Amino acid sequence: MTGGTRVTAVRVHDVRFPTAAAGDGSDSLNRGDYSASYVELATDGGPTGAGLTFTNGRGNELTCAAVRALAHHVVGRTVPEVAREPVAFWRSLTADPQLRWLGPEKGVIHMATGALVNAVWDLRAKLAGVPVWRLLAELPTDELVRTIDFHHISDALTPDEAAGILDRGRVGLADRLDQLTRDGFPAYTTSVGWLGYPDQQVRELTRAAYAQGWRALKLKVGGPIEDDLRRVELVRAEVGPEVLLMLDANQVWGVDEAIGNLAQLVGVDPYWIEEPTHADDVLGHARIAEAVGRQSGGRCRVATGEMAANRVIFKQLLQAGAIGVCQVDACRVGGVDEVLAILLMAAKFGVPVCPHAGGVGLCEYVQHLSIFDYLRVGCSLAGRMIEYVDHLHEHFVDPVRVAGGRYQLPVAPGYSVTMRPESVARFSFPDGPAWR
Amino acid sequence: MTGGTRVTAVRVHDVRFPTAAAGDGSDSLNRGDYSASYVELATDGGPTGAGLTFTNGRGNELTCAAVRALAHHVVGRTVPEVAREPVAFWRSLTADPQLRWLGPEKGVIHMATGALVNAVWDLRAKLAGVPVWRLLAELPTDELVRTIDFHHISDALTPDEAAGILDRGRVGLADRLDQLTRDGFPAYTTSVGWLGYPDQQVRELTRAAYAQGWRALKLKVGGPIEDDLRRVELVRAEVGPEVLLMLDANQVWGVDEAIGNLAQLVGVDPYWIEEPTHADDVLGHARIAEAVGRQSGGRCRVATGEMAANRVIFKQLLQAGAIGVCQVDACRVGGVDEVLAILLMAAKFGVPVCPHAGGVGLCEYVQHLSIFDYLRVGCSLAGRMIEYVDHLHEHFVDPVRVAGGRYQLPVAPGYSVTMRPESVARFSFPDGPAWR
Repeated sequence: MTGGTRVTAVRVHDVRFPTAAAGDGSDSLNRGDYSASYVELATDGGPTGAGLTFTNGRGNELTCAAVRALAHHVVGRTVPEVAREPVAFWRSLTADPQLRWLGPEKGVIHMATGALVNAVWDLRAKLAGVPVWRLLAELPTDELVRTIDFHHISDALTPDEAAGILDRGRVGLADRLDQLTRDGFPAYTTSVGWLGYPDQQVRELTRAAYAQGWRALKLKVGGPIEDDLRRVELVRAEVGPEVLLMLDANQVWGVDEAIGNLAQLVGVDPYWIEEPTHADDVLGHARIAEAVGRQSGGRCRVATGEMAANRVIFKQLLQAGAIGVCQVDACRVGGVDEVLAILLMAAKFGVPVCPHAGGVGLCEYVQHLSIFDYLRVGCSLAGRMIEYVDHLHEHFVDPVRVAGGRYQLPVAPGYSVTMRPESVARFSFPDGPAWR
Repeated sequence: MTGGTRVTAVRVHDVRFPTAAAGDGSDSLNRGDYSASYVELATDGGPTGAGLTFTNGRGNELTCAAVRALAHHVVGRTVPEVAREPVAFWRSLTADPQLRWLGPEKGVIHMATGALVNAVWDLRAKLAGVPVWRLLAELPTDELVRTIDFHHISDALTPDEAAGILDRGRVGLADRLDQLTRDGFPAYTTSVGWLGYPDQQVRELTRAAYAQGWRALKLKVGGPIEDDLRRVELVRAEVGPEVLLMLDANQVWGVDEAIGNLAQLVGVDPYWIEEPTHADDVLGHARIAEAVGRQSGGRCRVATGEMAANRVIFKQLLQAGAIGVCQVDACRVGGVDEVLAILLMAAKFGVPVCPHAGGVGLCEYVQHLSIFDYLRVGCSLAGRMIEYVDHLHEHFVDPVRVAGGRYQLPVAPGYSVTMRPESVARFSFPDGPAWR
């Protein structure tokens, strides 16, 4: 166990795609050039580990710089060393006595932590010759439990409770895997209703999505409420009552404003309201969840998580009954290790996980998390869907494959975020040909 | 109102002091080289605006880089423009459609926001020829209210409620100012009990502090509980029952662990327990507050705030009854504008504000906040103290003056964080003489 592939260097690339001009990805708060701080772990032989964190354009240099600031905790490590003492490794990054002040465990420094931690998981899975979802699903319970830092969450989830969930998850795993291999994993699309699109484009995109098999669609809200209502009613009229419509306000509302607007929007029978208010407002989300549950006769729930900074925020969202859908993001939090904690807390509290995706590489990442969750943690597809946005996949060596509204299981070893070298070169900022 | 001094450039300096080797500032989580991302706003005539954010050493380059990423929102502005539309200015920084993803409103990007916003306040006060505390205390109520972004906090504090507090604060203001001018502002010292100090040094520092007039002392805890108990009992034995002892765990405990350890520590009659658990854990702090109140017969309260990321976290700490002391930090949040919101929310909820200080320049900053709070918001000294740590003040042009355990009122125009040019030069990282 002392040998094994050793990380010899951390390389980080500032990769930016000029998406802002097109209006893709426009919502009530974010209009960006989808970007990635792309991390490569060079090794003394064997594969290269790949990880990334997604950003919205400007500022991508900050997460790149944070990766460099943390890199010394990764260089020189071997995969077996990290696997033997995963919490010690994770804390070397998250509890660095000087860098912790910059978070703690949030924002720039934590997103960089996630990129590095995920790159180690990618390397580990490539060395094992399996995709990350399979690596995780087949790990012994005690090894999975040992991967989680229970510090600051043990009041909500103990190691014994985690082990119990993971042990129960072994039952029927082969059948669930057969089913996923055959049918794929349910998904929904966010490609039809960006705020930057005019009504006619939304209508056409809705028809096209329905024709492609999508039966769950997400629309951005958070503009003037009369515009929101018109667009949502337009889409509902196109698709009929059976299709799930999700609404996403991207945090623009205050708590009372959210409750007031939702009183109107529940008329279109939304399945969830996503990010109805500020990402940090656990108590506000709890109030909104109570109100919208009442307004909708229990049919609409609150979803959030793409900007929930860490496991401590998720813990409270679950403890407070503030969310009915847990939208963990693969790179906002500190990598697979912290996602495990969040998946297990969600399972304990009976809340389905529908990961946040889109951006750059998020779909590639989160498919592994949802598949593992179904195989070993949540063990149900009820209420589970992976977000899907159909852009920028062409830059990955092993892009997601979606058909008939379902993700097909990835089979290549690793975590699926290895970028094509020509894409990295072309879109490197500011010196790549796309930016010169 | 369209003229006025215009910001022509933002300069940022990576200034680091080699404090780690001395054990100063060592607590259960942080051992650092106290540092500042020091911001200067060059203008087209007139004074230079100075702001800073404190960091713990490594990573100071990240907050410097974040200042550069945000600087274009400040360059070209005039002070009257900002004063006319303060929320629009503040949101240009905090809701930048690309940079917001890196927070939102937390960590590296928000600390850089604070440095820039505070530099504008420093410039404004210098132009007015008054210290920031006086500028704020003398502003009309409507102008103070217009400075606050009520978005995401109006469920806890409305503009009308804020105006009511500020209007009432005009009554008796002159008397309170006379009193402060005469007596200074109460303080406590954190210089006696860093974890890095051996018992004998703690004993000697305690005696020296008592002899200097200090009647409120803070000790770091969060090591092995038997060591914590021994050190705290040692100090209590030195100073007797009348001196206030505050304990600071710097987030190392889990929620249940905090409750268990406090059951033992309440025996030394601590006045507060600071940061008993993770900074983001509003619900955890609320549980601990309930428990320690019960354990101590209501004599010990929970204090936190130095790592509370923004007004939304403070809002919830107050709504949940999680804190009995509000320890806002001058540069963790987004500058004076956001501090105003936090002071007013604390006043509404009846919680005294005792700002976090220490580090580099924090004492210089927060004296203005506490003085303003007393003059115009909280209007009481009951339970109010400013933290004081006696190092690194010599690097400031107008350092804090503390005598007999009380801050003396600063009189120089500005926000008191203008650094001596020779200090900036000497401690610039990595090229200054102190680091070469």
